[in-house]
Amino acid sequence: VALLRLLVAGGFRKLVVCHLDHGLRGRAGAGDARFVGRLAAEFGLPLETKRVRVAELARTTRESIETAGRRARHAFFAECAAKHRCRRVMLAHHADDQAETVLWNLLRGSHGLQGIKPVQRIIVPDGGELEIHRPLLEIRRAELRTWLAAHGWEWREDGTNREPVTARNRLRLEALPLLNDIAGREVAELLVRAALADDDARQVADWALAQARVSDPQGRLHVRVLRALPAALQRAALARYLADRGVGGVTRDLLDRARAMLESDGPAKLNLPGGMWLRRREARLVVWHG
Amino acid sequence: VALLRLLVAGGFRKLVVCHLDHGLRGRAGAGDARFVGRLAAEFGLPLETKRVRVAELARTTRESIETAGRRARHAFFAECAAKHRCRRVMLAHHADDQAETVLWNLLRGSHGLQGIKPVQRIIVPDGGELEIHRPLLEIRRAELRTWLAAHGWEWREDGTNREPVTARNRLRLEALPLLNDIAGREVAELLVRAALADDDARQVADWALAQARVSDPQGRLHVRVLRALPAALQRAALARYLADRGVGGVTRDLLDRARAMLESDGPAKLNLPGGMWLRRREARLVVWHG
Repeated sequence: VALLRLLVAGGFRKLVVCHLDHGLRGRAGAGDARFVGRLAAEFGLPLETKRVRVAELARTTRESIETAGRRARHAFFAECAAKHRCRRVMLAHHADDQAETVLWNLLRGSHGLQGIKPVQRIIVPDGGELEIHRPLLEIRRAELRTWLAAHGWEWREDGTNREPVTARNRLRLEALPLLNDIAGREVAELLVRAALADDDARQVADWALAQARVSDPQGRLHVRVLRALPAALQRAALARYLADRGVGGVTRDLLDRARAMLESDGPAKLNLPGGMWLRRREARLVVWHG
Repeated sequence: VALLRLLVAGGFRKLVVCHLDHGLRGRAGAGDARFVGRLAAEFGLPLETKRVRVAELARTTRESIETAGRRARHAFFAECAAKHRCRRVMLAHHADDQAETVLWNLLRGSHGLQGIKPVQRIIVPDGGELEIHRPLLEIRRAELRTWLAAHGWEWREDGTNREPVTARNRLRLEALPLLNDIAGREVAELLVRAALADDDARQVADWALAQARVSDPQGRLHVRVLRALPAALQRAALARYLADRGVGGVTRDLLDRARAMLESDGPAKLNLPGGMWLRRREARLVVWHG
């Protein structure tokens, strides 16, 4: 609601309001859909709505509700985008969503403090590309609510956000308030800043790896080039190369064992997760399958 | 206790056991000192002990107990090092200390997931240099206890670690167990790994900045060199330069305002915290005082 009102206030005119009912909240979901319908009508904007049964989808594909929901939303946005001949999708994730995501990714073992990207390109199954923008990512939920309330504008709450049943809800309802209390400050704001710094670090690493020319034209890693670099850069180059080749579950320990292959008297072969191998041949490191 | 026993088991012979009683725990502190004395005697190692009143020191210097304690320890280690003509200090910080520190630094607003350094050089007030090593930084507290208990070796507990009064103790006793429960895994291990990755990112940035040759021989920033770099690298260069010049309280917003000075039609002067200025002159950026 806040995003739509801000976009309209900001002069955006060619908007399509898209609402997907996930079929998870029964009558409340239908109420949301009617509310969105009235909002679109108030601004004279075209409306696209659809109802899916995310719980059933998740059972069929054996995904989590969250993953199945995300996939259903992207498919729906892609349909709307094709129908209205536009590719840009604006989403209303805010700073508190970002803080939760950063903490959530940290607890799932991601390297660093990765958050939601402010701009993201997504390839959808039908071959189209969506450009996702999240303009509210540095604005707190409370600021948005205060702004809406100050104008007397209504919004809808998703009651399931208040139930400390999923891990993400527990982060929001239990962990973040406790961390705020211990720190004596708003941890969400620190996490949002940390995600920006983490994204910068990733871009600096991209630049450094390009600068170091660690790959040959076939994309294989140059052993002699790598050998001359600091250990941290060697790990970054190996991590990037293995990720690009679809090798998952890469630990720091594995990277250090791969680094041992850079020495001419080091091992020439290393077992990778997923039945793959890293081999040293003709002064190059290459991933081999099977 | 575990560190000393591991060092002895690992063949270290020229060790000096150093124990500083912080004067914070009365009789328990004196009991610790006697325990350490017996341990040193058991291995036939020289012992250095001292008692300070950290609470009084902290009142005098208006520092926190933690900061005053750290300063007193470093001064004591420097005294011992001078007396025994050695500079290497081994400290027993373990993976749980590291995890707490990473979370603690994050909550204090440090950029990224900075932990305790495994190796650190410290200049002590008398001009000497200490080389601090923390060989247990990737080993969990529980592993050390299990190892000691399996050999029937005693250790001492610091009862104040169990009181949820300081922010750090609350992190250990309240926040980390809650995060473990939500994540369904040992968050300490993730935080230790994240600190290693963060340290790598810092080294990659060091390399990238050296490679980009952003500074002239006088250490001033080259405007034209910076202008050609990606925004993330510009921010890294500016952050490093300002930190080296003693400018504190540098936010991302400030860095972005400094970046605007790279354009020839951008501002030529920027107010910095602490009454300093950043000025663009002769295609260089320089910090000016007053």
